[in-house]
Formats: sequence, structure tokens, C-alpha cells
Amino acid sequence: MTSGTGGDIRLMKGNEALAEAALRAGMQAYFGYPITPQSEVLEYLALHAPQHPGTVVLQAESEIAAINMVFGAAGAGARAMITSSGPGISLMQEGLSYMACAQLPALVVNVQRGGPGLGTIQPSQGDYQQAVKGGGHGDYRLIVLAPASVQELVDHVFLGFQLAERYRNPAMILADGALGQMMEKVALPPIGSLAHSTPPWATTGKPKDRPRNVVLSVYIQSERMERQNLVLQEKYRALRETEVRCEQLGMEEADIALVAFGLSARICQKAMDLAREKGIRVGLFRPITLYPFPTAALARAASTVQAFLTVEMNAGQMVEDVRLAVEGRRPVEFTGRMGGMIPSPDEVLAKIEEMAARLRSRARS
Amino acid sequence: MTSGTGGDIRLMKGNEALAEAALRAGMQAYFGYPITPQSEVLEYLALHAPQHPGTVVLQAESEIAAINMVFGAAGAGARAMITSSGPGISLMQEGLSYMACAQLPALVVNVQRGGPGLGTIQPSQGDYQQAVKGGGHGDYRLIVLAPASVQELVDHVFLGFQLAERYRNPAMILADGALGQMMEKVALPPIGSLAHSTPPWATTGKPKDRPRNVVLSVYIQSERMERQNLVLQEKYRALRETEVRCEQLGMEEADIALVAFGLSARICQKAMDLAREKGIRVGLFRPITLYPFPTAALARAASTVQAFLTVEMNAGQMVEDVRLAVEGRRPVEFTGRMGGMIPSPDEVLAKIEEMAARLRSRARS
Amino acid sequence: MTSGTGGDIRLMKGNEALAEAALRAGMQAYFGYPITPQSEVLEYLALHAPQHPGTVVLQAESEIAAINMVFGAAGAGARAMITSSGPGISLMQEGLSYMACAQLPALVVNVQRGGPGLGTIQPSQGDYQQAVKGGGHGDYRLIVLAPASVQELVDHVFLGFQLAERYRNPAMILADGALGQMMEKVALPPIGSLAHSTPPWATTGKPKDRPRNVVLSVYIQSERMERQNLVLQEKYRALRETEVRCEQLGMEEADIALVAFGLSARICQKAMDLAREKGIRVGLFRPITLYPFPTAALARAASTVQAFLTVEMNAGQMVEDVRLAVEGRRPVEFTGRMGGMIPSPDEVLAKIEEMAARLRSRARS
Amino acid sequence: MTSGTGGDIRLMKGNEALAEAALRAGMQAYFGYPITPQSEVLEYLALHAPQHPGTVVLQAESEIAAINMVFGAAGAGARAMITSSGPGISLMQEGLSYMACAQLPALVVNVQRGGPGLGTIQPSQGDYQQAVKGGGHGDYRLIVLAPASVQELVDHVFLGFQLAERYRNPAMILADGALGQMMEKVALPPIGSLAHSTPPWATTGKPKDRPRNVVLSVYIQSERMERQNLVLQEKYRALRETEVRCEQLGMEEADIALVAFGLSARICQKAMDLAREKGIRVGLFRPITLYPFPTAALARAASTVQAFLTVEMNAGQMVEDVRLAVEGRRPVEFTGRMGGMIPSPDEVLAKIEEMAARLRSRARS
Repeated sequence: MTSGTGGDIRLMKGNEALAEAALRAGMQAYFGYPITPQSEVLEYLALHAPQHPGTVVLQAESEIAAINMVFGAAGAGARAMITSSGPGISLMQEGLSYMACAQLPALVVNVQRGGPGLGTIQPSQGDYQQAVKGGGHGDYRLIVLAPASVQELVDHVFLGFQLAERYRNPAMILADGALGQMMEKVALPPIGSLAHSTPPWATTGKPKDRPRNVVLSVYIQSERMERQNLVLQEKYRALRETEVRCEQLGMEEADIALVAFGLSARICQKAMDLAREKGIRVGLFRPITLYPFPTAALARAASTVQAFLTVEMNAGQMVEDVRLAVEGRRPVEFTGRMGGMIPSPDEVLAKIEEMAARLRSRARS
Repeated sequence: MTSGTGGDIRLMKGNEALAEAALRAGMQAYFGYPITPQSEVLEYLALHAPQHPGTVVLQAESEIAAINMVFGAAGAGARAMITSSGPGISLMQEGLSYMACAQLPALVVNVQRGGPGLGTIQPSQGDYQQAVKGGGHGDYRLIVLAPASVQELVDHVFLGFQLAERYRNPAMILADGALGQMMEKVALPPIGSLAHSTPPWATTGKPKDRPRNVVLSVYIQSERMERQNLVLQEKYRALRETEVRCEQLGMEEADIALVAFGLSARICQKAMDLAREKGIRVGLFRPITLYPFPTAALARAASTVQAFLTVEMNAGQMVEDVRLAVEGRRPVEFTGRMGGMIPSPDEVLAKIEEMAARLRSRARS
Repeated sequence: MTSGTGGDIRLMKGNEALAEAALRAGMQAYFGYPITPQSEVLEYLALHAPQHPGTVVLQAESEIAAINMVFGAAGAGARAMITSSGPGISLMQEGLSYMACAQLPALVVNVQRGGPGLGTIQPSQGDYQQAVKGGGHGDYRLIVLAPASVQELVDHVFLGFQLAERYRNPAMILADGALGQMMEKVALPPIGSLAHSTPPWATTGKPKDRPRNVVLSVYIQSERMERQNLVLQEKYRALRETEVRCEQLGMEEADIALVAFGLSARICQKAMDLAREKGIRVGLFRPITLYPFPTAALARAASTVQAFLTVEMNAGQMVEDVRLAVEGRRPVEFTGRMGGMIPSPDEVLAKIEEMAARLRSRARS
Repeated sequence: MTSGTGGDIRLMKGNEALAEAALRAGMQAYFGYPITPQSEVLEYLALHAPQHPGTVVLQAESEIAAINMVFGAAGAGARAMITSSGPGISLMQEGLSYMACAQLPALVVNVQRGGPGLGTIQPSQGDYQQAVKGGGHGDYRLIVLAPASVQELVDHVFLGFQLAERYRNPAMILADGALGQMMEKVALPPIGSLAHSTPPWATTGKPKDRPRNVVLSVYIQSERMERQNLVLQEKYRALRETEVRCEQLGMEEADIALVAFGLSARICQKAMDLAREKGIRVGLFRPITLYPFPTAALARAASTVQAFLTVEMNAGQMVEDVRLAVEGRRPVEFTGRMGGMIPSPDEVLAKIEEMAARLRSRARS
């Protein structure tokens, strides 16, 4: 293990690695409220933040208080993070819409649990559409990252802060309870590796040599409000052009493409191996950015694969974005589990075999 | 005008007609918090509810308090309503997810204003995806109705309560600020015309002759939580099969189909007239239920029309559901305004003419 | 038992008798939040209020929400009540100060438990000074009633509403957990026996024939604010002159006067009997109104008795008001228990005997 | 001016001097919510705290959130402060009672404004009884300090932290709006001059070598709760014996003693000078600790002066404590103004002359 301020290799639980990564990424303010399965984030930060002077870590009165504190901290130019799970994230929807309108960067982490409602504390991917289509009101988007390993969870903390600040927009890591609880080896970047300076628009107190900085999300005149919307839409266009990330495994020679993110993608990789053993040519398409979604890459894949199978830990949410990309050119099927249940590689394999049989019989006819 | 308890014809503002309709529909509990452009609902109810004994009308501490009071009232079997606009609706996302999981009926009205953020108080349709894709966490759906006139606003209050109670699911009326403020002639159904009895599952106190009723949204065991999700998904399937509503104008002989809901549909009707005067064969497809969305009817329309133009007062939200229905068989274009701006019939006409020219040149080539 | 709307004799628990009395007294609005030892009040009202059309009973989000709803209801002219115990009453201090300044009548019931802090759920009289000296900010007073039996608890509901409305000031019943839980026979007044009409100052909507009614507690100009204070002080003077209530038992021939309110007075009555059996001439002075305090009657008593013993279920709070009345002319001693402990008659007797011995030895010397 | 970390002489506004003193006194956590006339405290801290690493300064969602954050910070052993004015302090009464029961040190500053209610923003002393008699529920006491100059305001920050930590009890500085706004020369102690170490009872995480630390305010068993009360009462007894502070000016040769604290004492000093010019022998008795109150010193003064005049910016609150001390041996009169009005030296002089005349005529008769 290297020194405390340098890069480290450690065996860590996802939630703790996330917290440690935030400290190393120079997070200046964390506001949260405990909820399973991510309470370890706050606990870890409470214990370790004192070794990072200038880092505020605070358990607020509620998720609503917390997200509005993030608004305030981000408005003052601080690198701020908030974490929760589904019910807590739902409580933040007003705040997130306000931040998106005010163009404030921050990192929001949703360690998903099974819903809807208070639900269960087991892992889920049921908050995809909330994250990606905008759970709050108005036309806005979050940058959404979907890590599939503890290492990627750490990397996405750095990437999330970077994208949020570059584009002045909240970024969300859409993780899940299993990722938060699993232990994996992880390389931690050194402290100080992610530069930060107070942005020029921050409300840090007006000096004599510049006009007053104002951060707000209200524009009474519709013409002005529409101009603000055009600024946002232009930003989202830039994101879609520049920041799409995905991983493709064995897609060149695949007949059937599995499409899955996060934990589901790990299961799919195992299912892909099982299918290949049975001679079925299966590839894996893994969106890493859920917004912007890798639409163009999927559309290209539709030229070579014969069918898509979307695998999610929900009732079928991302599958809509897959269908929007494929535009009816190939069948897009779905399989998944809900309420905290995790699909097994064998369940996915069974579905693959069923699809493969269908493709063969169609080829014969 | 007929007698006070019978049916009435009146000239009324949308917000007030909505409130009066709720009283006549036998609403027993209203909880809300003021926000433009729908504060008249609460004001009207505060003034007139005392003439309806047994009707509780209360301004709560916040939208969060209000939606949780709706949860409580609905859980006790009362016919309950809540109204707000974008920012307030965002604050209710946790509560709505809880109600959907607990299968509680209630009527939620979103009189949309321009967002995101605090935004503007002018009309908008920017909350379509929040309403339709589930703004809260987990796999759940609201029944979503989109009135295009004050009369339909009134009718949807009755329909909304009916569907909510029949399916034990929150229903939302997705209106907008213009509809809330405009005055139109409206026929009001008589009091007592919508039957209501306390449902057998309501938590009204345990008598000796039945087991205890329990209303909750938490299921610690994943297997149990998944079963609850299967119940919900089965309900949504039934909704999609049984409760789809849409209106089609001149679609049989149309080359270009306008697709629009609510206020946009009124503008499109005018644009359609203008286009027909110019010899362009334009039809109007108006979804009345936004969830369940009229996917099948749109898919059928794709067999006869040559192109679709979706018109919305947002950056393009329903257009995704149109594209999911059309599946790439026809071009689906979008035009719209944001931030409280309303597209004019002439703007829509210009877009129609541009598309018509493109269709002609494509036909020639 | 007489008919449902007439007067009744029943055997009832204090908390339930209180709730039933409020319904019979024509309470129109109740707002509360559960806390032991008075949660039965809300439960009883939730069950029985539906039989009293026009009565709103609501569990609010918090005690703060509840007291501000009382402010609103009282401002609109409704007869409103709120109940809680120590911690909840503390949360209402801002609201109570606002109501006192705005001259709003309402009935507040504190069923005391042992404090400070979250404390214990056992009975106490630890909130005397909070109730009597003004727990909130600024110069204001509550009318404070101290019932010593379930019957008096019922009677004080009627008296509390009456005084609150006559003087336009919040009134508080200072009960305790034992009184709330004990069962006694109680005569319940009939419904409709306490007249109520909407007061002329209520904010019920401005008709054409009077100026707008305004209810507020803010006066930016100090001169105006001082005038409002003078109005309040004049009211408190009138209360002290007109509304003092106390009970005296055997005071004419007493050497030692026990001074006690509420439950303590019941214990003292037993101790008085025990002392008299031992030949000690003991009387009982029981303040019924704690504000206005029976200062003049106590001062008169100081001319005939030789010593006072104040008995309280706290560390000695009312004893200050006794001393202020006696002004050093006679010794004023104190005995009491804290934290939910109830002094026994024997403990009081022991203290009486000790004082009697001291008086005798002083007489001899 | 000396170096940044040494002692300074500066001309400062009271609120800012208070904030600077807190930083120099090693305050580690400040939580607050803005309210006139003390919002400069939060503003000053927000600007200057970043130069004091490890100091958390946070504007909470409400005064209730803020005081509970103080509970948490104090429980973890941090030196914590909160400031507000009347309405905000009223909202903290539950929290203060909890802290007193849990024996948590912290510094609370009330920069009083005219009440009751929202009142006015002008200075007042209307919260004396709330501060001194316990505005919250249960038998507890705050240590209450009453500065009469900006210098004393600074000194009381240090003294307040010291007493709070020595006695493990919240301490309050009872200032007023005039003191917060006035500019005076002030000597600021150097940083580091007030030692602080994490107390052994703090909940800092359990190491192996000591049992778990628990901080709470709930004791279900009455016997246990009473023991906790006895611990508190013993502490208050020690405070009354050891920590009483007052200032006496010209009391030895006085016929009439003015009794006043804070700003009123400054006015009385001027009135005393005016009276002496007229040959009336007037002294000034200024309580510096309002709790513990200088009862014994006042009782001793009653042996030499002929009458007392209590001067307060309220309807007469401290006068009760003066009367309790004097026990009827001398007349105790009161004069004051309310609602943000400040009595002038001439008003006080007029009252003095009236009393002097009465004393003379009594002497003659």
C-alpha cells in the first residue's frame, strides 16, 4: 500500500470506496440523511472527513434540507456531494430541477433499493427512468453514470465531479445496493489529483472588480425562461455528442446482443459465457453513461446483430431507450426481476436460448 | 341554470371549475399548498367546502405534508384530492411512489407552469415525462389524463376519481396554467352522481368480523416485494388494455398527423384548419390518456399517414412515446416551445408546410 | 344515561373525557401530533368527530405545523384546540407567542410528563413556569387552568374556550399524565350548551359592508408595537382582577397552609386529613387559575396562617409565585418530587410534621 | 493592531464582534438561521470561518434543524454556538430542554427584538423570563449572561463557552438589537486562548479501552429520571453558589437602587448621574449573570437602600426576581417600555424623582 496521500490499492466495500473516493476527489461539502443500503457512506465520511480539513460533512434534518444545502454549497462554488437511495432521491426532485435550471454542478449518488414505496432494502435498478427522463418537473437532464464494479464506482466519483463541473449540471451515479455492499480490490487515486478552483460565477461575495454573481432558477418572463431552456438544451446536445460512454464485448460476431448496465451487466457477462459454451453467439452492450445514452452505437449494432435482449433489475425501463435507438429494425426483448430480486445468469441464459430458437426457426422459414 | 344540487351550466375559470367539480364528485378530503397558477383551487374550496359537510379542506405546511395527508386520507377510504404545479409536484414524488405501492386511490392535479426550477408562472407541458414515466422511484405508474378544455377538466375530475378507485392507483390530471385560467362554458354534473362507499381494505378501525386492514408500502422480503410488483404490473397491463382514450380528427384522409395533448391540441386544431385551407391533408391525433398511452391506435395510424408531427409545450417529451409506437416506420418530427411560451398556429403551420414540401420532393424522387 | 345530545353521566378516562368535552363544547378544529401520555385524545377524536359534522380533526406533520394550523383556524374564527405533552408544547412556543400577540383564542392542553428532555412518560408538573411565565418570547400571558379531577378537566374545556374567546387569548389547561389516565365519573354537558358565533374580527372573506379584517403579529414601528403591548397588558390586568379562581379547604383555622394545584392538591388533601388526625391544623389552598394567580387570596391567608408549604411534582416552580404573594411575611417551604415521581401523602405529612415542630419550638422560645 | 492570531483592538459592531470572538474562542460548529437584528453574525462567520480550518458554519433549514445540529455537535464534543432572536429562540425550546437534560454544553445567543409574535425588529428585553425561568418544559436552567457593552459581549462569548463546558449545560447570552448594532472599541483575545479538548463523555466512536458513551435525554423509569433531575438540581445549586456575577455602582451610599441589566443598565447609569446632580442618592445594581441571579447581593443591598427601581425594556420581568430577593423588606418599583421602545434617561429620572418625593414624605410623616 502506498502512502496516505498517494494512490492506494485496497480491498473495500463499495459504499466505503465511494466515500473515500469523494474525499480524495477534493469534495468540500457532503450533506445527507441515512437510508439503507448506503448509510455507510455518511458513517465513513463522519469518521474520516476530519482528516481532510475544510471538508464539511453533515447529516441534515431530511433529504430536502440536504439537497437544498447542496444547492447552496454548489452555488458558492464548492465541490458538493449527496447520497441516498430511492425514497430519499424522490424527495430531492424539486431540488434537482432547481439545480439543473440554475446550472449548478454536484454529484448525486443513488444506491438503488427495491421499490416502489418504502419497498425493500435489496438491490434494484428501478430508478432508471427517474434518473434518466427527469424525475423532477420541467425540461432538464442529469448526467447519469452506471458503474458495474467497485473500481468503476470510484472512477465515476472523479468522472462525475469532472462532468458536473465542466457542464455545470448535476451528475448522478446510479448504483445499487449490491454494488454498495460488495467488497472488491480498488485502486484509489491520490488526493489532489482532481484540480478544483472556485468558478467565476460562484456567489462568493462581490469584489469591486466584477458585477454581482447571481444564482437562481426563476425567470418570470417567459421569453427569458425560454432562453434559459435553450441554453440547457444546447448543453444536453453537447453532452450527447461528446460524452457518451459504453462498453461492448464480443459484439462484432454476435447474433444476440445483451443490453445491460451496472450489476445486470455483470450477470449478463456470465450468461454470455454460458451461451457461448452452448454455441450461441452472444455479445454484451453495456451503457456506461445512461444519459447521454449510447443511442448511435446501439443503432450501429442493429446493423449486425439479429436481436436484442435487455436485462434489467426492474419491470423494463431502459428497454425503451434501446427501442428508441433500434427503431423497429430488430426485435428488442426484455427480461428482468423486480423488488430487490436479482436475475441469475441461468435465467438470462434460458431467455437467450428461447430467442436463439426463435431466430433459427425464423431463418429456416 | 338548474338547481344547486342538480347539473349546472356555468361560465367558469378552469381552476374554479376543477374545484367545483371535485366538490360535486364527492371529494371528502383536499390537502394542498398554494402555488401559481392553481392557487384558485384552494381558495375556491376554502370558500365553498363549508357548504359540503364532511369535506375537509386544508392548507398544509408544505407539499410533502399535504401528499402524506392524502396518503392517510386515502388509506382510511376517503376520496381525496391534491393540486399543485411543477415544483410542488416534484416534492410529492416520494409520496406518490408510496401511494402507488400501497395501491391507494387519489386524484392529483398538476396545473403545469414553465420549468425547470422555480421557472415561470406561464403555462407549459414540461412535466409530461415526470407524470408518465414515473417521477418517483421504483416501477410504478400513474393514470394520467390530459384535458383540452374546461369541460374536459371537469369531466376528468369524475373520471380520475373513478379510475383511481377502480384500479386502486393514484390518477393525475396533467393540465396547464392556460387551462386553469381560461373561462369557458361548462356543464357541471349534479352532486351525488359519483357513488362512493368506503372500500373494504380501508383502515377504518377493526371490527370483530374481519381481520385487521393494513396499508403499507414496505415489504422487507424481496420475494414478497416482487409479488407486489407483479400485482402492480398486472394492473398496468389491464389499464393499457382497457382504459386507453384518444381523439382522432380527420386522420382517415391525412398525410401528416399532428400529435398533441391538452392545450397544444387546441393550437394544432387551428393549425390543421389553416393547413387544409392550403390543401395539405393534415389530421390530429390527441391522446386523452397519457398513461396508458394510445400506442396501438398510433401504430395503426402509421399505416395510413406519411409522417407525424408532435407538438408540445416543452423540449420534446411525448415525442418519445410517439416514436415508440411508430417504431421507425414513418418519420416522427417535433416542434415546440419552452419555458412558458405557447406555440402559435402559424408556427405549427410553417413546420407542417416544411414537412409537406419534404414529402412532395421525396415522392417525386 | 341521558340522550346522546343531552348531558351524560359516564365513567371515563381523563384523556377521553377531555376529547368528548371538546366535541360537546362545539370545537370546530383540532390539530395535534401524538405523544404519550395524551395520544388517546387524538384517537378518541378521530373515532368520534365524524359524528359531529363540520369538525376537522387532523394529525399534522409536527407540533409546529399543528400550532400554526390552530393559528389559521382561530384567525378564521373557528373554535380550535390542540393537545400535547411537554416536548410538543415546547415546539409550540413560537406559535403561542404569535397567537397571543395576534389576540387569537384557542385551547391548548398540556398533559404533562416528566422532563426535561424527552424525559419519561410518567406524570409531572414540571411545565408550570413555561405555562405561567411565558415559554415563548416577548411579554405575553396564557390563561392557565389547573384541573384536579376528570370532572374539572371537562369543565375546564368549556371554561377554557369561554375565557379564550372572551379575552381573545390562548388558554391552556395544565393537566398531567395521571389525570389523563385515571377513570372517574364525570357529568358531560350537552352539545350546544356553549354558544359560538364567528367573531367580527375573523378573516372570513371581506364582504362589501366592512373593511378588510387583518390578523397579524408583526408591527414594524416600535410605537405601534408598544401600543399593541399596552392592549395586551390591559387585558392581563383585567384577567387578574376578574378571573382568579382558587379553592380553599380548612384555611380559616389552619396554622400551616398547603399550597398545591392539580394532582398535587389531591395528595395534599389526603395529607391534610392525616395531619389533622395528628392534631396539626392544616389547610389547603388550591390555585385553579395558575394565571391569573390567586396572589391576593394568598396574601390574605398570610395574615392568618403561620407557614406555607408548597407541594409540587417538580423542583419548585409555583413556590416562587407563592413567595411573591406572601412577600416574606411567613416562611414558605417547598417539597416535591421530580421526573415523573409522585409525592405520597406520607411524604407530605412528614414535611408537615417537621414544620409543625419548628413552629412549636419557635413559639416556645 | 497586533498580529492576526494575537489580541486585537478594533472598532466593531456588536454582532460582528460576537462572531469574531466565537472564532477566536475556538468555536468548531455554528448552526443558525437568519433573523433580524442578528443576521450579521451568520454573514460574518460565512465570510471569515474559512480562515479557521475545521470550523463548520451552516445555515440550516430552520431554527429547529439548527438547534438539533447543535445537540449533535455538542454531543460529539465540539464547541458549538447558535444565535437568533426571539421567534427563533422560541422554536429552540424543545432542543434546549433536551440539551439541558443530556447535559450538553453550547453557547446560545439571543439578540432580543420587540415581541411578542413576529413583533418588531427594534431592541427589547422581553425574553428575560423565557431565558431565566426555562422556556422549555421540565425543570432545567440555562446559564444566562447579560452583557452591557460590545466588549462584554466579546468577553461573554469566552465566559459562556467556559461555563457551559465546566458545568455541561447550555449557556445563553441575552443581548439585544441595540447591542448587536452599536459600534464600540473592543479588545479581542488571541486565537487559542481558550483551551479545548474533546470531553471524555463525547460520542466520538467507541475505542476498545472504554465503555460506549451515550448521550440522551430519555429515561423511561421515573426513579432514573428523578436521579437525573437531582444531578441537574445539584449543578444549579453549585452555579448559584459559585458563579454569580453582578456590578454595583454607588450602592454603599444610595437611598434608591436602580436594578437593570444590559442596555437598560447603560441608560440607568446616565439617569443615576442626572439624579445625583439633583441631589438624589441613587446607586446602580447590575446583574451580569441573570441565572444564577445575584439574589444574595440584592438581599444585602436591601439592608442599606430604602427602595428599588427596576428598569427593563419589557412589561416587568426581572422585577419578580428582585422582589423574590428583597422579600417585601423594601418597596420594589418598576418602570419600562415595550415593543422595541427604549426608555430614556429622563424617563427614568422622572420615576426616580417621584420615588424620592415619596420617600421624603414618608420620612417626614
